[in-house]
Amino acid sequence: MITPALGVCYYPEHWPEAWWESDAARMAEVGIKYVRIGEFAWSKLEPTPGDLQFDWIIRSMDVLGRHGLKVVFGTPTATPPRWMIDKHPDMLAVDVNGKRRGFGSRRHYDFSHLGYREECARITQLLADAVGDHPALGGWQTDNEYGCHDTTYSYSPAAQAGFQHWLSEKYGTIDALNHAWGNVFWSMEYNRFDQVELPNLLVTEAAPAQALDFRRYSSDQVAAFNKMQYDILKAKRPDLPVIHNFMGRYTDFDHYDVAETLDVASWDSYPIGFLAISDEPDEVKRQYMRQGEPDLQAFHHDLYRAVGHGRIWIMEQQPGPVNWAQYNPDPLPGMARLWAWEAFAHGAEVVSYFRWRQAPFAQEQMHAGLLRPDSEPAPAYHEAMQVAEELKSTGIAGNASKGRVALVYDYESEWAWQIQPQAKGYTHGAHVRALYAAFRKHGVDIDILPPSAKSFVGYDIVAITSLFTWNDDLRTAITEFDGHVLIGPRSGSKDENFAIPAALAPSLPSNLLDVKVMRVDSSDPNVEVEVRGGGGAVRHWRERIETKAKVIIEDVEGWPVLVSQGKLYYQAASGNKALTQRVADYLIAEVDLPTVNLPAGVRCRTRDGFRIYVNYGAGNATLTPAADEVGYALGGVDMPAAGVTVARLAKGA
Amino acid sequence: MITPALGVCYYPEHWPEAWWESDAARMAEVGIKYVRIGEFAWSKLEPTPGDLQFDWIIRSMDVLGRHGLKVVFGTPTATPPRWMIDKHPDMLAVDVNGKRRGFGSRRHYDFSHLGYREECARITQLLADAVGDHPALGGWQTDNEYGCHDTTYSYSPAAQAGFQHWLSEKYGTIDALNHAWGNVFWSMEYNRFDQVELPNLLVTEAAPAQALDFRRYSSDQVAAFNKMQYDILKAKRPDLPVIHNFMGRYTDFDHYDVAETLDVASWDSYPIGFLAISDEPDEVKRQYMRQGEPDLQAFHHDLYRAVGHGRIWIMEQQPGPVNWAQYNPDPLPGMARLWAWEAFAHGAEVVSYFRWRQAPFAQEQMHAGLLRPDSEPAPAYHEAMQVAEELKSTGIAGNASKGRVALVYDYESEWAWQIQPQAKGYTHGAHVRALYAAFRKHGVDIDILPPSAKSFVGYDIVAITSLFTWNDDLRTAITEFDGHVLIGPRSGSKDENFAIPAALAPSLPSNLLDVKVMRVDSSDPNVEVEVRGGGGAVRHWRERIETKAKVIIEDVEGWPVLVSQGKLYYQAASGNKALTQRVADYLIAEVDLPTVNLPAGVRCRTRDGFRIYVNYGAGNATLTPAADEVGYALGGVDMPAAGVTVARLAKGA
Amino acid sequence: MITPALGVCYYPEHWPEAWWESDAARMAEVGIKYVRIGEFAWSKLEPTPGDLQFDWIIRSMDVLGRHGLKVVFGTPTATPPRWMIDKHPDMLAVDVNGKRRGFGSRRHYDFSHLGYREECARITQLLADAVGDHPALGGWQTDNEYGCHDTTYSYSPAAQAGFQHWLSEKYGTIDALNHAWGNVFWSMEYNRFDQVELPNLLVTEAAPAQALDFRRYSSDQVAAFNKMQYDILKAKRPDLPVIHNFMGRYTDFDHYDVAETLDVASWDSYPIGFLAISDEPDEVKRQYMRQGEPDLQAFHHDLYRAVGHGRIWIMEQQPGPVNWAQYNPDPLPGMARLWAWEAFAHGAEVVSYFRWRQAPFAQEQMHAGLLRPDSEPAPAYHEAMQVAEELKSTGIAGNASKGRVALVYDYESEWAWQIQPQAKGYTHGAHVRALYAAFRKHGVDIDILPPSAKSFVGYDIVAITSLFTWNDDLRTAITEFDGHVLIGPRSGSKDENFAIPAALAPSLPSNLLDVKVMRVDSSDPNVEVEVRGGGGAVRHWRERIETKAKVIIEDVEGWPVLVSQGKLYYQAASGNKALTQRVADYLIAEVDLPTVNLPAGVRCRTRDGFRIYVNYGAGNATLTPAADEVGYALGGVDMPAAGVTVARLAKGA
Repeated sequence: MITPALGVCYYPEHWPEAWWESDAARMAEVGIKYVRIGEFAWSKLEPTPGDLQFDWIIRSMDVLGRHGLKVVFGTPTATPPRWMIDKHPDMLAVDVNGKRRGFGSRRHYDFSHLGYREECARITQLLADAVGDHPALGGWQTDNEYGCHDTTYSYSPAAQAGFQHWLSEKYGTIDALNHAWGNVFWSMEYNRFDQVELPNLLVTEAAPAQALDFRRYSSDQVAAFNKMQYDILKAKRPDLPVIHNFMGRYTDFDHYDVAETLDVASWDSYPIGFLAISDEPDEVKRQYMRQGEPDLQAFHHDLYRAVGHGRIWIMEQQPGPVNWAQYNPDPLPGMARLWAWEAFAHGAEVVSYFRWRQAPFAQEQMHAGLLRPDSEPAPAYHEAMQVAEELKSTGIAGNASKGRVALVYDYESEWAWQIQPQAKGYTHGAHVRALYAAFRKHGVDIDILPPSAKSFVGYDIVAITSLFTWNDDLRTAITEFDGHVLIGPRSGSKDENFAIPAALAPSLPSNLLDVKVMRVDSSDPNVEVEVRGGGGAVRHWRERIETKAKVIIEDVEGWPVLVSQGKLYYQAASGNKALTQRVADYLIAEVDLPTVNLPAGVRCRTRDGFRIYVNYGAGNATLTPAADEVGYALGGVDMPAAGVTVARLAKGA
Repeated sequence: MITPALGVCYYPEHWPEAWWESDAARMAEVGIKYVRIGEFAWSKLEPTPGDLQFDWIIRSMDVLGRHGLKVVFGTPTATPPRWMIDKHPDMLAVDVNGKRRGFGSRRHYDFSHLGYREECARITQLLADAVGDHPALGGWQTDNEYGCHDTTYSYSPAAQAGFQHWLSEKYGTIDALNHAWGNVFWSMEYNRFDQVELPNLLVTEAAPAQALDFRRYSSDQVAAFNKMQYDILKAKRPDLPVIHNFMGRYTDFDHYDVAETLDVASWDSYPIGFLAISDEPDEVKRQYMRQGEPDLQAFHHDLYRAVGHGRIWIMEQQPGPVNWAQYNPDPLPGMARLWAWEAFAHGAEVVSYFRWRQAPFAQEQMHAGLLRPDSEPAPAYHEAMQVAEELKSTGIAGNASKGRVALVYDYESEWAWQIQPQAKGYTHGAHVRALYAAFRKHGVDIDILPPSAKSFVGYDIVAITSLFTWNDDLRTAITEFDGHVLIGPRSGSKDENFAIPAALAPSLPSNLLDVKVMRVDSSDPNVEVEVRGGGGAVRHWRERIETKAKVIIEDVEGWPVLVSQGKLYYQAASGNKALTQRVADYLIAEVDLPTVNLPAGVRCRTRDGFRIYVNYGAGNATLTPAADEVGYALGGVDMPAAGVTVARLAKGA
Repeated sequence: MITPALGVCYYPEHWPEAWWESDAARMAEVGIKYVRIGEFAWSKLEPTPGDLQFDWIIRSMDVLGRHGLKVVFGTPTATPPRWMIDKHPDMLAVDVNGKRRGFGSRRHYDFSHLGYREECARITQLLADAVGDHPALGGWQTDNEYGCHDTTYSYSPAAQAGFQHWLSEKYGTIDALNHAWGNVFWSMEYNRFDQVELPNLLVTEAAPAQALDFRRYSSDQVAAFNKMQYDILKAKRPDLPVIHNFMGRYTDFDHYDVAETLDVASWDSYPIGFLAISDEPDEVKRQYMRQGEPDLQAFHHDLYRAVGHGRIWIMEQQPGPVNWAQYNPDPLPGMARLWAWEAFAHGAEVVSYFRWRQAPFAQEQMHAGLLRPDSEPAPAYHEAMQVAEELKSTGIAGNASKGRVALVYDYESEWAWQIQPQAKGYTHGAHVRALYAAFRKHGVDIDILPPSAKSFVGYDIVAITSLFTWNDDLRTAITEFDGHVLIGPRSGSKDENFAIPAALAPSLPSNLLDVKVMRVDSSDPNVEVEVRGGGGAVRHWRERIETKAKVIIEDVEGWPVLVSQGKLYYQAASGNKALTQRVADYLIAEVDLPTVNLPAGVRCRTRDGFRIYVNYGAGNATLTPAADEVGYALGGVDMPAAGVTVARLAKGA
């Protein structure tokens, strides 16, 4: 039985030791249970090489423990101290322009540098030994925000050597590599693995297979780096969860792979900052500047629940204005509460606010905390306290309900279309998120599936869009599934070596789906072509297909847009919002899926016998109770801006 | 008697040898005559240094020859194999930011690197010896697309050394260089040639004369590189044409100079891609997204006919969507036919589609061919076949008709105004192309002339706009010409050392043209100043002139815009489209030039007793037959979108 | 008694010696008194190391002196000759991307390079000795436009070594530095000063305190460089003014600090170019494309009068189109006169046009002069002559009147908000200039004060906006002042170590101002929130404050915008133009300040018993005579475009 809880991020090294006691007491007063510490403290833990100073952090754990708080201990490997650079001058990463990325901020290390990896194993082991048996310890965090500040990729000599080795392991012979990459194309054939260069600073673009292999290699280094820490931490305390805090809108490594050595996936949720740096249209940015984009957090919750094998935390929750977007608005009053409730609705075990007290110094001094720099409560202090009380009063627990709709999300597909957009701005993620929003508009619970999913059993609808390439598991899952499957444009348009399949896209057996993409018509997304029969238009990406499947939707130029063969549907073009909605609506009607009638701005999800509604709108909203609801545990049909309503569901609903 | 023919680009090394035979048979079936091969095959021809593997390519020529096809053999020097970099690590060019441009794509060489130049001479000689006497051989191509991917300029040590040597040859003494460049201006005087640096990464801009000399030097290296190959190939087979495939919208070297060692100029025509990457307004990009800008191809045909001493091929013709623009739309059905016909209308001897079969791998896998990756015909396959049949049925042959209007186009002027725009976006080419479109709107045949033209005899109107500097030949041509000459703004505004002439621009003898540009008023091109008398406005570039010439047009502020002195006209400002048209119309009326009444979207040119009409519009158009037409060899007055009509002209017309 | 005079910039080394005599005669004819020479002539003064060639420049001074002209001699240190780079290869600065900034233009030196600094001391001493006693000598200019082309900051080894030394001097111990910068935040603690790197090419942003210290260090190097020259020149001729020509819109070093070793501040005024490269909206750029932004020149005059301890020259005055903006329009006829008059109105002693004759060669060949390249008068020649006559006829002299309103302008505040905008585009200068324009709209004379101002006595209103941090002098000045003080948003929001003050912003004693900024709400400046009571909106930056002060203006969401405590006002948000005007109007009304009724486009200032009006508008304007005016020394109530009217004031006004 999972009981949701609150947490907070705390940096005892930033404050006088005399303050720790009252800080801990106030955390307990708020109703906080977990306190993350340690992840930026290496220079205080080991001020000079080998001079270990762990006493102070153990004292801070003592204090926290005395107030009933559990510590999530973060390994400090995202911020190696300055002396480490003296020891390993070549551990600094090199950017895509060939520049060494210097010391003076954070994440100044190269995932390919094995010397630094050893140093991280050393400090992780030392810390595991020193604090692993502390009674207040409740979990571990590895490093901090892998990849932040574009740090997954490095173009260093270490990366080049690592890549060459990785390629020799993968391909065995240089001929196999030349063949896989299509190097005959422009006389790009290598004679030996040690001739292979990294795919930056070329005259024009690299072969897409080379670019993709470099991304796979780089992602593997992140996974190996995490595994190194995981193995040490689990060996010490098999009972405690090892967690990493991933980020939003970040795709540079394969999170599923990294999470193979994690017990829980957590992510750092900054709804307002993410909207501000997104490519949403200006009107959306203004409409939701104080709330964040209404579907973005939920999508990430569902995604990281999949990444985390069903277990998800929010390790950092935005509590007020942040410092890192172009503009950093104050959230609408109540949003720090709403975001937490939405996370819990999607299955979060812990929502941990970042950070306890706003630091008046250094890079993040304009980032709000639960406390102001003068230690007075900031608005989120009171909102967090309210959430803690409401968690108790509602008694929410258990897991997020299994979805009725599943969407496949695949990191490799993100890389592939970044490498070869063919239509500027074409991405895998945008296609998945567009479907996500269209289904969620009807209050349908959604799950995200990895491309390694072996079965779709239990879902009504599965959608796979813009998928780079098939694998055997996915093909089997489709073949054996008796629900409806929507396959979106560009899916299966490449083989694993980034070549067009011999049978042409989407490259499924013709008895399953008789569709062949003859060629692609990509265009400025502002050029829309209406579809017949009312509602929607195709844009950006259109496939000219040959098909014997049944045409359900075609555009006004007569090209098929949506075709079906049994319960398998193929969408041969990117659609505008209306077309995407129309396709989702069509499928929902086909399978007669129960829906919830949601006012504009309101979203919902079910967990453990409850349906949690959140109002992202700037004004009031009135709910229409759904058939399966039997009353309210929190709030009611009238929702103010930033409001939360928790409905109780009939047993078995 | 030139008989127009079709060609195709083919890469036998990309396909199983077993496919060659049927590929060749199908090429013949389409009606193709020329097949270009070889230009990216170095790593297959010489897999390791000195290991020559020419047999396979000779076998491919055997196959092609058996099907009556002629081979254009491309030297593979645009794609040196990886081992070449081991031999000559410093052969890689250095970009304007000082970065080495690495191996892994193509054109990874420095034109200034003499060691690589020797390697190219070696492989060219070896190939000439090996295939020069093959019966299927029909011509040579040197390298591939000189300058593509910004490769004309390199900022390497080799380039610096070469530039210093070139300067010492040009100027003799360092004092002469200091004087020519105006180095006294900011204490920039050199003591020795070996102190001269390249004009990149300076604190602020270099002296314009230095920047221009560096461009002249770099252009000379391209010419020298081509001459090296030409000399070898002509020595082997004096009877076969040596061709290079130039690009569209590319001006970084002087194509006239390079073509001094070419028999035919060819260019690679990608109408849709060129429009997509152009700076045309968005509405034009959308209107013609499936056709290309209607005057751009024609301009290049006429330009390269001038570059090629009257002989022009299209070495690569777009057959469908390409892969390299931001968006890559499917052409309108029929465009692959239309583009070929337009090229023939402008004198092309061969139109060669790129490429035979779409490659499913490597960088250009999304670039269409005549065949799809699965070897089925793509739409252009059928369009090409139609063209081949129509060429026969119409019997078009001979040369493009001599124009009635000639426009001077000058690469040095392009460089000069890139170096010193004075008004952002001011270019030589845009001024020439604006006049080109204005005259072409009336169906007038146009020729392009190099700045080395010695005589204008035979033309009715000659226009010279935005010319950097005069030379003696041009001055003589003007003086001796009895037709009308329009001299556009900024012409003659510099001497050859990039200094303002003592007599001020346009610096023609006052008995010829009494105009003096006192100063220049440049402004945002959106700020227009109307001209009096209806129609048009000046913008972007306005000259304040003193003149005793007759004022024909003045702006509403009273500044002269068009003045005349006898048959010499001077335009003292850049005009918007309406003003440019008005000036062209005025001149056409003055010389009473025969015109063709063209519907919107339709263009035409005459060749060898035929007038070929093409319809770039998205809808139908109806022709008004011109007085000199006596019937139709193809099509008729009603033209569909992408339609072609070939009218027969009365004898002597 | 200061008699305003005209000057011109002249480069005898650019012209045949035979021309000098007539040039000097014509300068005298125009009414010019000062001629600046020498500042780019090092390669002519010392063509090879130690080969001093001073005779020619002394002869040029002889010629100028014979015509009654006074020479301002510029040290040539902004343009070291090419041989200097051979002597000191590491004297070239390194840009923020780590690139050496090469020879071939100007300002190719690193302020941190002590070897080059010695060379500058040597040439300055040699020149001081050689020309210091020349009877024509009237003053000195040090170097030329410090910082132009982004040259204040260098990221070179010399800069790193200098910075480390500067830090060790400032902080004494590395612990003190770690504490001041907040290095504990991300384990950024140093063990030794020699580990400190420069704040470029980091993984993400540096600690703001580090970034600010690097700016302080860099600014100090400019000041030290200037002091080195000043000490030599003053030692030679204590009676002559040492001047530097600063730039407009340039803030990379602290001009007050540099001017500690200057007698006069001058600046180079290019109104049209500055507008063209500014971030003013397009409509403003078009409206004033031929005049310049109407308040920008005046602001700089007032600023540099403060920088120059009350003494100001215009060392370079735009005379016609320039060459360095994207577009370079011809000024409205009369502007070269208007700009000079406006400068004199604000206290200028000399307005010196740049340059005498347009150079037909090198980088600035498209920059107008008083003469055209063919030595004929350009329009500004006649306008300058008119100004010279009008200066005599009006008898204007004395000083700019003391302002009634003072605005504090602070370079460190510019740096601070560039380092940490928190709202993209937030700047100190924009806030100061917005208030400047609002007060000036009423014809109120304004002074600029440095942050080191010790007293506000004599002013009616002092405004301090967006000030980084308080200092003791400013606090005292506020406390002791009995006028009105407006404190704008973000003022006092940091301590000197770039940390949020313990008492939170604005951090004034609560008995003075009981306001506490709880948090900041920054947003897209297009999102406006209306204020109550008519007129204006807040935008971009809003502070959520706690206050016991009286609320004068609040926004429609109920947040205080303007509060007062006695005569101290705090503005808690950035305002749009209407709100800024409303605040200025409110204060003017409160103190009952006399105003002038100005037509749109017209501005004015008083000097020495005169009120000078200038009309920046494109059309005619009609003045309403102010109560203190007794007639006109020049012009009258009807002002044409670019017109100037000089009103006489009643004695004692």
